[in-house]
Amino acid sequence: MISKKMKPFVENNSAIRMMFEEGKRLREQYGEENVFDFSLGNPSVPAPDSVRQAIIDLVTEEKPEVLHGYMSNAGFEDVRETIADSLNSRFGTDFRGENLIMTVGAASGLNVILKTILDPGDEVIVFAPYFLEYGAYVRNYDGVLVEISPDTETFQPNLLELEKKITEKTKAVIVNTPHNPTGVVYSEKTIKHLVSVLEKKQQEYGNVIYLISDEPYRELVYDGAEVPYLTKYYRNTIVGYSYSKSLSLPGERIGYLVIPDEADGSGELIAAAVIANRILGSVNAPSLMQKVIGRCVNAEVDLEIYDRNRKALYNGLKELGFECVKPQGAFYLFVKSPVKEEKKFCEIAKKYNILMVPGTSFACPGYVRLAYCVSYETIINSLPQFKCLAEEFGLKKN
Amino acid sequence: MISKKMKPFVENNSAIRMMFEEGKRLREQYGEENVFDFSLGNPSVPAPDSVRQAIIDLVTEEKPEVLHGYMSNAGFEDVRETIADSLNSRFGTDFRGENLIMTVGAASGLNVILKTILDPGDEVIVFAPYFLEYGAYVRNYDGVLVEISPDTETFQPNLLELEKKITEKTKAVIVNTPHNPTGVVYSEKTIKHLVSVLEKKQQEYGNVIYLISDEPYRELVYDGAEVPYLTKYYRNTIVGYSYSKSLSLPGERIGYLVIPDEADGSGELIAAAVIANRILGSVNAPSLMQKVIGRCVNAEVDLEIYDRNRKALYNGLKELGFECVKPQGAFYLFVKSPVKEEKKFCEIAKKYNILMVPGTSFACPGYVRLAYCVSYETIINSLPQFKCLAEEFGLKKN
Repeated sequence: MISKKMKPFVENNSAIRMMFEEGKRLREQYGEENVFDFSLGNPSVPAPDSVRQAIIDLVTEEKPEVLHGYMSNAGFEDVRETIADSLNSRFGTDFRGENLIMTVGAASGLNVILKTILDPGDEVIVFAPYFLEYGAYVRNYDGVLVEISPDTETFQPNLLELEKKITEKTKAVIVNTPHNPTGVVYSEKTIKHLVSVLEKKQQEYGNVIYLISDEPYRELVYDGAEVPYLTKYYRNTIVGYSYSKSLSLPGERIGYLVIPDEADGSGELIAAAVIANRILGSVNAPSLMQKVIGRCVNAEVDLEIYDRNRKALYNGLKELGFECVKPQGAFYLFVKSPVKEEKKFCEIAKKYNILMVPGTSFACPGYVRLAYCVSYETIINSLPQFKCLAEEFGLKKN
Repeated sequence: MISKKMKPFVENNSAIRMMFEEGKRLREQYGEENVFDFSLGNPSVPAPDSVRQAIIDLVTEEKPEVLHGYMSNAGFEDVRETIADSLNSRFGTDFRGENLIMTVGAASGLNVILKTILDPGDEVIVFAPYFLEYGAYVRNYDGVLVEISPDTETFQPNLLELEKKITEKTKAVIVNTPHNPTGVVYSEKTIKHLVSVLEKKQQEYGNVIYLISDEPYRELVYDGAEVPYLTKYYRNTIVGYSYSKSLSLPGERIGYLVIPDEADGSGELIAAAVIANRILGSVNAPSLMQKVIGRCVNAEVDLEIYDRNRKALYNGLKELGFECVKPQGAFYLFVKSPVKEEKKFCEIAKKYNILMVPGTSFACPGYVRLAYCVSYETIINSLPQFKCLAEEFGLKKN
């Protein structure tokens, strides 16, 4: 009864559901506190209290017809201006409210911009490992996803391969920094190199290649790492942002797109993206949450909590002999599997009540992703279990 | 720079923007209170106070990680069960929480179900007049929209033409009752006739034809009109609902789909629709608003306000000699234009600071839509202006 395009999704879905059911089964059998579930990217740090206060103030002060009413499909003008001003003061950009479109989270923002720009057969390049849903988003508009293989030394993007894989059909390149699943932040050097490749290829083909920066983890950085703001390096950059992680509001579906004036075809892109936002069914981003963002644009979650988790898990695993690139952002570790088939590693980890996501789910087999957005106790209590796991695989303590 | 599919939207958009600009210009020139803007379907009755209270209680009582966190892509289980129970007690249905998928309003719900079922070239039938966005939603998935011409006597659906236009490619029929733009409620007799046509054609072609019931106006009915619950008449019914109008929360984007167990392929449909909700970018319906619905499932806006507007505008216009089918639901009047080209009528109405939407925008030329979700004062003060308009067109008082 369902469309041909949806069939493979439903077939694959049972694997994800099985993993979910497995977690549930383990929790029921061993108790919540004895299961070490590192599989979910659901923020564990609560939203800042200013969010709660803003919600109460808004429903107390504002007229419900306005607060919960329709506005421009692009979002409330005052909220978009507030965000533009905030970005300008942080990054030295020159955005106006008109450059922003409020979206139902970053996932919807990516769909909106891909619907806006893709004709059937257009290619969109991604760097493995990557969030597999990018493939679904691109195929929603009959685009073709082109993968660049991972540089497993640094997990910075493989730019030599990028240069080879850009064709006259390349419409966009997606980057995600800080990065899911590795936690890596793309350095300024990397960005400059990436931009030089894009500039060269734009000229070579006489085409526009948009750089789509998917950056829900922008605010989640540690060790003072800097995350370059990409519109400043490459004018055909489009930013997709979400407050899911920065304010711990993933269920609320609130984010935005930035389409700068300097992007080729900016006016037409903005007009089309606002319409795409409407006709894909979002219509507009949730209104109360837009207004909350307007009041909490400078709020932050407590990063110390993630940082403590990061250090405890990274150091603990390194000590046990696991290999892993040190993450500077997001809330993930991407750990090398001691055996080539990382699914086997994940399977055996379950014996110790440890749940991880195989790298295959990010187009990067041989690795596993651990999301450390869990309680500190979970991390500390998991380490003896990881010790057993390390021993089972014959790892040597560092 | 934008995709070929988006180009016509951007071109048409300037007409809508011009209308919006025109309204703004009039308000600036003549003052807010002297402009009679009947063009917008934005609820004027505030959300019930229980919504405000539920929001305050939720942010006070619930953990933010849960309240604003990810849940199943289908929505919070407790909320879906609460809604299912409520529907069951109101309509004698037999839904479980699993039959419901919380969506980003009805527009997103329609996109989700169309993505779930449509292969390229599949036909979806709509009855003129209809909300033109249905066409955009269907074309998002390369479906073909098939229009049934209006029955301008009653604005009940033209079922003789339906029978002729169903082909082996017909995948779905969309109905919208109470109806935008006419305010008509489809009678039980109509529904039974419609169902008999669908049953017959399903058998003739050996295909499943889904009846998609888009019913954001279900709760907005007057004169004790009954709105039949369609799953009880036809098992292949899928319901798309929204709280935009029933609780005056259009900006919040909260609604649901119902896929009953008795629908053909129900299990597969539900699984695919949940995935479509995810990969189209909604991921899930906004979490706080889901919980609000869970607590306000029996709340209602004050319908008396709309009803008073309805009577004042309908009676006022009839008295002046305008022709119009009496609306039993929603918040629209669909008035016959005194001249064939209703755009000319709309143009001349602007001289009297009256803004209306031409029927062409609903695939039904010769009529205009008036949204009476405005203040009562606007209606009363508009009547002398309508009188001048009627006189200009030589209408005779009733």
